[in-house]
Amino acid sequence: MTEQPTLEVAIGDLGTFMQRERARVEAALAAVLAGPEAEPESLHRAMRHSVFAGGKRLRPLLVIAAGKACGVQPDEVLAAACSVELIHTYSLIHDDLPSFDDEQLRRGKLSCHVLFGEAIAILAGDALQALAFEHLAHAGRGSPHPQRWLAAIAAVGAAVGSSGMCGGQTMDLEAAGGSLQIEQLRCLHAAKTGALLTASVLCGGILAGASGADLVALRRYGDAIGLAFQIVDDLLDVEGDVAQLGKRPGGDADRGQPTFPSLVGTEEARDETQGLMRQADDALESFGDAASTLREIAAYIVDRSR
Amino acid sequence: MTEQPTLEVAIGDLGTFMQRERARVEAALAAVLAGPEAEPESLHRAMRHSVFAGGKRLRPLLVIAAGKACGVQPDEVLAAACSVELIHTYSLIHDDLPSFDDEQLRRGKLSCHVLFGEAIAILAGDALQALAFEHLAHAGRGSPHPQRWLAAIAAVGAAVGSSGMCGGQTMDLEAAGGSLQIEQLRCLHAAKTGALLTASVLCGGILAGASGADLVALRRYGDAIGLAFQIVDDLLDVEGDVAQLGKRPGGDADRGQPTFPSLVGTEEARDETQGLMRQADDALESFGDAASTLREIAAYIVDRSR
Repeated sequence: MTEQPTLEVAIGDLGTFMQRERARVEAALAAVLAGPEAEPESLHRAMRHSVFAGGKRLRPLLVIAAGKACGVQPDEVLAAACSVELIHTYSLIHDDLPSFDDEQLRRGKLSCHVLFGEAIAILAGDALQALAFEHLAHAGRGSPHPQRWLAAIAAVGAAVGSSGMCGGQTMDLEAAGGSLQIEQLRCLHAAKTGALLTASVLCGGILAGASGADLVALRRYGDAIGLAFQIVDDLLDVEGDVAQLGKRPGGDADRGQPTFPSLVGTEEARDETQGLMRQADDALESFGDAASTLREIAAYIVDRSR
Repeated sequence: MTEQPTLEVAIGDLGTFMQRERARVEAALAAVLAGPEAEPESLHRAMRHSVFAGGKRLRPLLVIAAGKACGVQPDEVLAAACSVELIHTYSLIHDDLPSFDDEQLRRGKLSCHVLFGEAIAILAGDALQALAFEHLAHAGRGSPHPQRWLAAIAAVGAAVGSSGMCGGQTMDLEAAGGSLQIEQLRCLHAAKTGALLTASVLCGGILAGASGADLVALRRYGDAIGLAFQIVDDLLDVEGDVAQLGKRPGGDADRGQPTFPSLVGTEEARDETQGLMRQADDALESFGDAASTLREIAAYIVDRSR
């Protein structure tokens, strides 16, 4: 099994938080997904393969950290933490398909469609998306705050849909080999990767009953780390190796995909991540110490590129 | 534009109901989907193409008729009516892909992937699924009964997921060319087509605040018409033509797909649809006249095969 060394960078309080909360999320995901005995077996194996292929669980950690910043315990937002990871996994499965990035490796393991075939991979993604929303709805039914869960479902739905992740993925397809301007690339990333990261942060706040002003602040934080995350990904794609990435590096360049480093250079791209980390910090000012984990996550995202 | 003559069979009260409620659903769908000016243009065009390719809107009509049986007006369940049609459309787009049925025609028009390419077709389906749940959540946020909308989201999610539509589609893939027993075929159809039809009926009841006993009755009705619908589809696939089907007939046989007529013969298959219609009628007994439209829809589904 390929290690995921990027996570081991996190030390101190963040390292403890990540270790503890990742274990909580893993256990919850294992309970949400049907076991290997469920029929049809191939579909459930494909779903479990991709969900348990060793992801960083960044989105669930953001839900939990944002919930903490707004005063609620991890268990109160755990269903949302799992659901955004199910959505993220579905998007990876579909992105790896031959008609998209045609990736053979994902998170250091064979891609879903390589192992199970294209049709089952498409269905596994489809079923994970449905499960994510079903799981959110069940959590809401057992909650004293059904309105908050409906708001979370709406936020996740918007982040996935045609003006979010799916829209960004379309822009990405259409940008391959073309010449994007830097502002168009920002727009693409905000939709393709940023929307779900921001929705993850928002879910933590929404489920905690955060005020409108706090949600605006969380959105600003989410947008900043979302863009930083993508720029770092671009930098790693230029500079990383298979062991670090869990997938083939240089894939963007091979596809003629515009990236931040290719448009503005490696140094300016790295400077921008520093600026975004400051924006993320500023956005969290009113939360005080409660937002310390969110701040550490922002620093961790940017430090991945060093 | 190819006509959809199967709908014109409905006469009298049902014909009036269908015409009026279809118009309501069409208008609502047009308002839910982003217009042609929305970016990315290709994705939104693909979504609109498939949603407005001339479907029968059977699932929305079931939501509305079930709502009527439980005493609520169409507008109170309209968001659910639209959402199940968005889900149905996404499933058709993905089912038509080359790695599935590889259909060039759908509802008498070119399939989504033929017009827009595989990648955009996959994304259009993905985005329609997300939109369906987002739309349900928005409706719930504006409702005095948020718990009912959460229950509707859970019901639709379960109907789509790995033990519903996606599971049935997997069984279908794995059955091609193989030898299914009749009970396995029932199980396949209950998941692939039946689950969403039953969920549509249930949504009408759930959103009306129907009792547990009424929901059990609606489920029995939905399961009966769901299976009848599929048997009739199999019969039409043997006996229909392109003008009637809006797609190439004989597709199941070409793929070596087991069907009811191929397993038990045309006459026995037709007899079973009559038995299912009686089961559907029986299930509705306690609803009295309020369920007249649901009864007429059951008869209409079975009469399609004549």
